[in-house]
Amino acid sequence: MTSQNQKTVAVVGGSGAEGGGLALRFAKAVMRVLIGSRSADKAQAAARRIAELTGSENVAGRANADAVKGAEIVVLTVPLAAQTETLKGIRGSFAPGAILVDATVPLEIAIGGRLSRIVALWDGSAAQQAARLAPSGVPVVSTFHALSAEALAALDSAVDCDALLCGENADAKAAVTQLAEAIPGVRAVDAGPLENARYLESAAALLIALNLRHKVHHSGMRITGITGLKSYGPRQ
Amino acid sequence: MTSQNQKTVAVVGGSGAEGGGLALRFAKAVMRVLIGSRSADKAQAAARRIAELTGSENVAGRANADAVKGAEIVVLTVPLAAQTETLKGIRGSFAPGAILVDATVPLEIAIGGRLSRIVALWDGSAAQQAARLAPSGVPVVSTFHALSAEALAALDSAVDCDALLCGENADAKAAVTQLAEAIPGVRAVDAGPLENARYLESAAALLIALNLRHKVHHSGMRITGITGLKSYGPRQ
Repeated sequence: MTSQNQKTVAVVGGSGAEGGGLALRFAKAVMRVLIGSRSADKAQAAARRIAELTGSENVAGRANADAVKGAEIVVLTVPLAAQTETLKGIRGSFAPGAILVDATVPLEIAIGGRLSRIVALWDGSAAQQAARLAPSGVPVVSTFHALSAEALAALDSAVDCDALLCGENADAKAAVTQLAEAIPGVRAVDAGPLENARYLESAAALLIALNLRHKVHHSGMRITGITGLKSYGPRQ
Repeated sequence: MTSQNQKTVAVVGGSGAEGGGLALRFAKAVMRVLIGSRSADKAQAAARRIAELTGSENVAGRANADAVKGAEIVVLTVPLAAQTETLKGIRGSFAPGAILVDATVPLEIAIGGRLSRIVALWDGSAAQQAARLAPSGVPVVSTFHALSAEALAALDSAVDCDALLCGENADAKAAVTQLAEAIPGVRAVDAGPLENARYLESAAALLIALNLRHKVHHSGMRITGITGLKSYGPRQ
């Protein structure tokens, strides 16, 4: 088994705020990071910025499908309106054994609505929609929704938030637990099967509503009262 | 304005676990508490138990509608399957100026499903359903879903959980903020308009799912990153 810091992570939508923040943290944690964007130029510009900020020499930018090709973990961080098209564009590019992490929040803004509201999706959640569109055999894990872009960008500060994650495949959840907990401050919490993704997506929208109401940019969420948390990997 | 500990709170469904736990905490905080139940006998038995545990002489049990008559704040803690019928039974009994607090979680168990799943309601949330059925002019506040019955029952321990609350009426939210924060450990967090109740109900179901998965009985939730929280009343 390769150690955590040798993993290659592709962040599809990595030139956006949420994806860029995650990519920054992964690069800081000495992982190999591939920034994916619709435009290879934009991806490369984002990669250069992250390399400067972190001093990492293992960050590169590529068009989305090319970024996916080289990755063991693919993190999807595009807006809901782009999720289906993006998945159709990358589904032929997954390496054998790769994992798809979906961080999509089904915000109503995708249909011209409000940032603080979500829409109900036919599949039950954005993550289940991602699982339907993902190549057969690629396990899907839903997580990272609650980690605010602003908190991720503040590289010198720990992120005061749990990463609740759900999915069907225990090995994939173990790998993503390690990925999440490579971000200082983040604790991964297993939230069960993939169908629970609707709870995680809903909780993320709640945090957005709280940000707007309380005029902050990085509210987060901690689960209390969970003793004996099942740990999938070494903790720091 | 009467001070917090002179308020009379009716807990409809107060002979159940969640309602009983809330009533216990309110009695401990030296409020006047009316336990409501379908059966006056059951309500009186629950009231006697709470009086013994807290030493309070201001706890009484009554049939639901009679409990509501005497209260400034009415907290509804019945299962989803009983919510509509209960509201129809008490709607004629609200005192002028009274507030309705809805703590209903629309669990799928109401239709023979799972404890860890919720159903979608026509009104958008159980609290909005309560608002539709409440008497005109009675403000509705949605809260308390996340406070576990077990944590409430452990009278010597603080409850490690935020009480997110939402509603349309600022004065009602202020009163319920005081009510919530009379429980040691609980912080009230304004989560916006009543339509956001679906987030709070969903978060409560997530905590139930986490309880089942992690084999605990009182997971809770804290919001981080909210500075300058708007306080509606004195804090202890």
